[in-house]
Amino acid sequence: MSDTSSNQMWGGRFAAGPDAIMEAINASIGYDQRMAAQDIAGSRAHAAMLAATGIITDSDADTIREGLLTVLSEIETGRFEFSTALEDIHMNVEARLKQIIGEPAGRLHTARSRNDQVATDFKLWVRDQIDAAIDGIKALITALIGQAEIGSDWVMPGFTHLQTAQPVTWGHHMMAYVEMLGRDLSRFQDARKRMNECPLGAAALAGTSFPIDRHMTAAALGFDRPSANSLDAVADRDFALDFLSCASICAMHLSRFAEELVIWSSAQFRFVTMSDKWSTGSSIMPQKRNPDAAELLRAKIGRIFGANVALMTVMKGLPLAYSKDMQEDKEQVFDAADSLMLALAAMTGMVSDMTGNRDALAAAAGSGFSTATDLADWLVRELNMPFRDAHHVTGSLVALAESKGCDLPDLTLADMKSVHGPITEAVFDVLGVDKSVASRMSYGGTAPAQVVTQIERWKKVLE
Amino acid sequence: MSDTSSNQMWGGRFAAGPDAIMEAINASIGYDQRMAAQDIAGSRAHAAMLAATGIITDSDADTIREGLLTVLSEIETGRFEFSTALEDIHMNVEARLKQIIGEPAGRLHTARSRNDQVATDFKLWVRDQIDAAIDGIKALITALIGQAEIGSDWVMPGFTHLQTAQPVTWGHHMMAYVEMLGRDLSRFQDARKRMNECPLGAAALAGTSFPIDRHMTAAALGFDRPSANSLDAVADRDFALDFLSCASICAMHLSRFAEELVIWSSAQFRFVTMSDKWSTGSSIMPQKRNPDAAELLRAKIGRIFGANVALMTVMKGLPLAYSKDMQEDKEQVFDAADSLMLALAAMTGMVSDMTGNRDALAAAAGSGFSTATDLADWLVRELNMPFRDAHHVTGSLVALAESKGCDLPDLTLADMKSVHGPITEAVFDVLGVDKSVASRMSYGGTAPAQVVTQIERWKKVLE
Amino acid sequence: MSDTSSNQMWGGRFAAGPDAIMEAINASIGYDQRMAAQDIAGSRAHAAMLAATGIITDSDADTIREGLLTVLSEIETGRFEFSTALEDIHMNVEARLKQIIGEPAGRLHTARSRNDQVATDFKLWVRDQIDAAIDGIKALITALIGQAEIGSDWVMPGFTHLQTAQPVTWGHHMMAYVEMLGRDLSRFQDARKRMNECPLGAAALAGTSFPIDRHMTAAALGFDRPSANSLDAVADRDFALDFLSCASICAMHLSRFAEELVIWSSAQFRFVTMSDKWSTGSSIMPQKRNPDAAELLRAKIGRIFGANVALMTVMKGLPLAYSKDMQEDKEQVFDAADSLMLALAAMTGMVSDMTGNRDALAAAAGSGFSTATDLADWLVRELNMPFRDAHHVTGSLVALAESKGCDLPDLTLADMKSVHGPITEAVFDVLGVDKSVASRMSYGGTAPAQVVTQIERWKKVLE
Amino acid sequence: MSDTSSNQMWGGRFAAGPDAIMEAINASIGYDQRMAAQDIAGSRAHAAMLAATGIITDSDADTIREGLLTVLSEIETGRFEFSTALEDIHMNVEARLKQIIGEPAGRLHTARSRNDQVATDFKLWVRDQIDAAIDGIKALITALIGQAEIGSDWVMPGFTHLQTAQPVTWGHHMMAYVEMLGRDLSRFQDARKRMNECPLGAAALAGTSFPIDRHMTAAALGFDRPSANSLDAVADRDFALDFLSCASICAMHLSRFAEELVIWSSAQFRFVTMSDKWSTGSSIMPQKRNPDAAELLRAKIGRIFGANVALMTVMKGLPLAYSKDMQEDKEQVFDAADSLMLALAAMTGMVSDMTGNRDALAAAAGSGFSTATDLADWLVRELNMPFRDAHHVTGSLVALAESKGCDLPDLTLADMKSVHGPITEAVFDVLGVDKSVASRMSYGGTAPAQVVTQIERWKKVLE
Repeated sequence: MSDTSSNQMWGGRFAAGPDAIMEAINASIGYDQRMAAQDIAGSRAHAAMLAATGIITDSDADTIREGLLTVLSEIETGRFEFSTALEDIHMNVEARLKQIIGEPAGRLHTARSRNDQVATDFKLWVRDQIDAAIDGIKALITALIGQAEIGSDWVMPGFTHLQTAQPVTWGHHMMAYVEMLGRDLSRFQDARKRMNECPLGAAALAGTSFPIDRHMTAAALGFDRPSANSLDAVADRDFALDFLSCASICAMHLSRFAEELVIWSSAQFRFVTMSDKWSTGSSIMPQKRNPDAAELLRAKIGRIFGANVALMTVMKGLPLAYSKDMQEDKEQVFDAADSLMLALAAMTGMVSDMTGNRDALAAAAGSGFSTATDLADWLVRELNMPFRDAHHVTGSLVALAESKGCDLPDLTLADMKSVHGPITEAVFDVLGVDKSVASRMSYGGTAPAQVVTQIERWKKVLE
Repeated sequence: MSDTSSNQMWGGRFAAGPDAIMEAINASIGYDQRMAAQDIAGSRAHAAMLAATGIITDSDADTIREGLLTVLSEIETGRFEFSTALEDIHMNVEARLKQIIGEPAGRLHTARSRNDQVATDFKLWVRDQIDAAIDGIKALITALIGQAEIGSDWVMPGFTHLQTAQPVTWGHHMMAYVEMLGRDLSRFQDARKRMNECPLGAAALAGTSFPIDRHMTAAALGFDRPSANSLDAVADRDFALDFLSCASICAMHLSRFAEELVIWSSAQFRFVTMSDKWSTGSSIMPQKRNPDAAELLRAKIGRIFGANVALMTVMKGLPLAYSKDMQEDKEQVFDAADSLMLALAAMTGMVSDMTGNRDALAAAAGSGFSTATDLADWLVRELNMPFRDAHHVTGSLVALAESKGCDLPDLTLADMKSVHGPITEAVFDVLGVDKSVASRMSYGGTAPAQVVTQIERWKKVLE
Repeated sequence: MSDTSSNQMWGGRFAAGPDAIMEAINASIGYDQRMAAQDIAGSRAHAAMLAATGIITDSDADTIREGLLTVLSEIETGRFEFSTALEDIHMNVEARLKQIIGEPAGRLHTARSRNDQVATDFKLWVRDQIDAAIDGIKALITALIGQAEIGSDWVMPGFTHLQTAQPVTWGHHMMAYVEMLGRDLSRFQDARKRMNECPLGAAALAGTSFPIDRHMTAAALGFDRPSANSLDAVADRDFALDFLSCASICAMHLSRFAEELVIWSSAQFRFVTMSDKWSTGSSIMPQKRNPDAAELLRAKIGRIFGANVALMTVMKGLPLAYSKDMQEDKEQVFDAADSLMLALAAMTGMVSDMTGNRDALAAAAGSGFSTATDLADWLVRELNMPFRDAHHVTGSLVALAESKGCDLPDLTLADMKSVHGPITEAVFDVLGVDKSVASRMSYGGTAPAQVVTQIERWKKVLE
Repeated sequence: MSDTSSNQMWGGRFAAGPDAIMEAINASIGYDQRMAAQDIAGSRAHAAMLAATGIITDSDADTIREGLLTVLSEIETGRFEFSTALEDIHMNVEARLKQIIGEPAGRLHTARSRNDQVATDFKLWVRDQIDAAIDGIKALITALIGQAEIGSDWVMPGFTHLQTAQPVTWGHHMMAYVEMLGRDLSRFQDARKRMNECPLGAAALAGTSFPIDRHMTAAALGFDRPSANSLDAVADRDFALDFLSCASICAMHLSRFAEELVIWSSAQFRFVTMSDKWSTGSSIMPQKRNPDAAELLRAKIGRIFGANVALMTVMKGLPLAYSKDMQEDKEQVFDAADSLMLALAAMTGMVSDMTGNRDALAAAAGSGFSTATDLADWLVRELNMPFRDAHHVTGSLVALAESKGCDLPDLTLADMKSVHGPITEAVFDVLGVDKSVASRMSYGGTAPAQVVTQIERWKKVLE
């Protein structure tokens, strides 16, 4: 099909053809060809419904549906020639269909418009990405659980402000990310349910006078129901924004873990050794093992949330129903989806392949008066001190240890008593890091037994 | 309580007091006092649980719980003096409690930290705002339904690209926004469910060795369950981001309607007359009725989504567990929540008080060859033409009418036949706007009967 | 060169090769090949300097410089095969250079690192885009001046709140955008000056012990000076952020004009007729002339500012010096630059080809009591009333006219006097729109003479 | 003045008064009172000009100018009662002026509108903030230079990917931030020049028929010239966006340094000790010295850039000239300006008061094969190896050292020769960190002598 025929699309009204700039800014076929499978699925469902409702003949519908499979096959095998003059995937597919099957192709677009068609295609595409994101998140959760099981009782510093606060367990730290990803799962699942209404049949914006059956096409395409307002159906891009919001928050979680991996990989921390698979060297420093993948992952929130900002800005203040501005929706979502899937896969790989350095973690866990809270809690529990007083006594003991250049377990009982007389030998039982973590048995606490409980719970969730 | 005592809070370790800059950047009491009721509710639940589990005495718990009510009363009646030196609402409340009840106040903070305390307070506050948003959205939906009922069969132009495309009904246009707001409802409801886990008992980050009952405090505060990982519980601000995402998308919907109201209020459109209550004059043009409220509403997406960007940026790359960066969460959410509630209220008022100009709407609906699609559909339906051919014939008829300076219904049958012989007199039946909208009976279409169906459905939803 | 040799790049230390995911997330050659010309220009300048300072021989330098031209030629003619395993444009070029010239290729990277190399390449690329943006803005200014000259004295409504406020001239309105674009020009020019420091020679981050001459390479590449701190030189992406800020504000200006063009193209306004070149039809409404290009332009601010958000987010909190996160810089800037250039070209075309509808503009200018301000000013000037009193009297006259269903010039002198006795026949001289605009002779005012003055000023600026 | 009189402002046309919601969404006096001094300065300049051009009498002008000083004094001393019903600072000031001086107050608003008035006020306010930002940046540069002078020759690790790459000097690292801040300076200075055009006299949007002298008011208010297009003058908020862009990039720089300070303060790094003035303790961990101020600073980019996003979103697609949406400009800029000034002050304090831990820095600098590049460069320089070959040999030597558990200087000459025969004893001269940094004498390099050169250059710049 030659490009010069493109003006025919508009019924011959336009004297002047679009020049190169207009084509560049207007045509979407360069990217919306990614929705070819969705476009063809939608058209096949539409044709079947048109026949079922008597709007076209069964014979025409069969010819159309068969022809569309041929087009799909051409696209999937790379034999299809996309034409920029035909602007978008919808016109490209229909034009090719006409070449293949002739006249019946012209009946496919009955009771339909590009407005409801593109909304349907794009929704189907986004829905597929939601499913892929859910799978990717589950794989990452599984990898994190794997690490949590390896080190459910390894001690490491729990940080606030990147300062050692209290000892925690490696497993507990891994499971914190499982909780975040669990919320990501729920967020994508909610978005999927909310968006699962079929725009097809909204036509240009007003619905149609043909006796179509929108419930039939909705069901055929896996939607829960047809959308309830035809203006909204073609003007809505909430589903794309929902996807971008979910992806952004997920990417934020990944950025936090990536930051930790970068810091943990430093020579100063050495908490973790990244696999060679996820590191690179330097062109000038051959000995380096740079946590490149972690850094690249840390950056993905920028890219994904940038797409969210872009589309939100585009949608601001658009009058109903369809405006061409909305054509900017797809590239943002495509790029964000690609970035998210890649980020989830890379993080899954990194987590699976990394090695926690148990000794370095344990050494760090025990320094910095990390069991001061345990001491304060002991004073409250055993000596019945009010918490605020126990806190004050603990502060004085820490100051004493600091002045002596030792840690809390290294103080003598006499040292202890010099600050607060009633302290007994029993206090030393709570000053070791292993005892500290084992004692944090409150629900969701860092005790290895609690970690194992949560691991078991999550395994059931994933089943 | 004097400000000079503030260093005692930290156990006397800090030789140098924070100077004015540090106080300005560090203290949060200037804004987090908005969470006073939530803070006190959380503390009261915590005290009750401490007693129930035997960690403190029933007597101490009663004294604490009673004293907290006194503090709350002081705050609610404006008699409480907030101290910047005490930094935040938590320390302000506890310090005052100590003045009122003495020693038992020091036992309240047992098995708790400011980290889980602030997470709990903030969650409770956000949850209240979600409930308020849901109410505000329902009120706006009710106002829109009111307009839809008034004009369920009024015809107006349906626009694409702000060009007349097809006639639609006023009621249908109003109900399009009801669908958007319906998704906003579902979004807030999903966010509420997802966030409804109680952080209290996570303590600083590791949980606690006290035998607390986190399920009890969770239930007392209306949470569905305690959060399952203490590190995550204090490091998580997803609930704030979810609120901001939901609010941003809702504000985007409002910006679209606000844009339409501004355009519709112009002298050129005159589709709607805004009430004086929601308009203002001009200091130099006394006759003007400016749609100020609509413009201000259109802008709120900037403010609310700006807050979303701000908090997302803050959270990027933060290591676990708590970092002080997270203190930037509250002002963003406070401002966004205030803006959203105000915007919903103002939009509800504007919609309730505005008057659609039925005649101007009808006149506009009938111009611009707005029933061309009806003509094309007639050719398909009655003459069995393929859609694409019918489209071409319609284009020629439009061109003919345009050249004659008339609209489609003004063409003679002879004119019609000159373009396509088989056309019959019956064609004129579909060229009127009232017939056009009445014919769009597909589910969710613009026909008045369909609009009424959706109105009834929504009334049941809101019951 | 086969892909399996890639591990040799890192000196053989990495046992495991990067797998597909790592390659996908890590390799930049898919997009950074756009900087090939800049990379080669930088390398050629570097080689010349290495020879001039005696670090390599003249003969090696000549061979390298000649070989690089061959590589450039291969790339420009599409004969170059880019290898993903070689990761980026730098390694691709150097590897190919080695194939062509052998051993001397290995001397090119002396006293250099990929860190300063990529910073230099990217700066050169961005600088080219700034120059292109400046050209594009000037072309658009020229087009706007063309419109301003056509209609320097055409009257049209000046809007506030999209309500008619006062009559203005078409030329004045066009020149308002010239002022905005003039600031865009200055913004890009400032950014160009600020970024024009050469990173080359900063090496990995610390500078080098080779006796290089950074002023020589800086001059050869058109930079004003070498950058003054090697850590900053490789860690800085301000120039990219500056470009994105400038582009975002420029796109914001375009979005405002685009919005006006969409509104002006509506059937209700008809202020302007867009050329067919920049409009499209509709697949279902053959008579429509949709302002697609304007709508697409209106959306570009989303895309461009989204890129700004993305890179700002990426840069947040990155420790010095180079982090891999920064690799996310290029795609954002590439896309934003492409979008901006396309938007400027399309807007230039639209503005050049559009036709203002003088009659519709004039008719709209004269309605809505648009000369009320002129009346108030007359009362102040001729009757010496305080402005606020004159304002009140004018309001009463407008109310009177409104109640009579006429406009201000249609009131009788008796009507006028009934509101304010001292009014004389002379008042009618200021109530016509042509007289109104002609009277606004304050500097920068809407009077045709003022518009012409500004047109002349801008023509000189552009010379 | 009672609130019930407010409707009089609009000339009595509005039957219904604005209710509480409208007042809440519409009134700006709650925040724009911050521009009182600017508003009064603008009005005083305007009154003087009105007299100089004969539009009002000298006597009236004197009375007005004197009365405005009285109002200013009332505001500055807290005796002024702001009225929400009067909406904004302009009406509040004028209403009070009328109470004080009576009738002449009504002449002040001649040849002026709130549109040009608010643009002028806000520009003056922003200009003041630019000046404050410039001062704040200079103070921080001075503090950084102070640190650079203390440790111009202290060695520390230079990082890429947070991995030790090469030794650098403490002074060099500090001066890297000076370069960034130097660009911030230039950015604010450019913005100041670009925005320094006076909107006053643009009136509502069209200019005025009064014979005003805009050059006179511009000069009186310190502007370089009057703005050249009255429509643009009242519709432009570029100056606010420029401020927010500059502030955002500056905040990004601060976030990078803040991140480093947080990491450097960790027990694992111990590169720096923050002063107690800029740290806080923990309510449960008395020994901690949390880098709170650094964390809060790291977060400010979110808040400031969030404001940038907010205003950019607001401005998107606004038709000319003034729209009420633009009222959202001020709170965003106010908050961002406050945040920036506070952040600059806090960072200046932190930098001044912090102590670099020279020994820890030096120890870290010497580990991790940090002089591998020096070795490679020696091979190139002394043995004339191509860089890529030298790199390969160095990699092997690093691998050898790693396998022996030692660093490069600890290898014997025999070890060296086993990898590459021609290596001589002289190689050991370049493997020490002090020699390494001293050798990086390229312009802008890390050598102490280069650092001192840059310190001297900057001191002159600041003079």
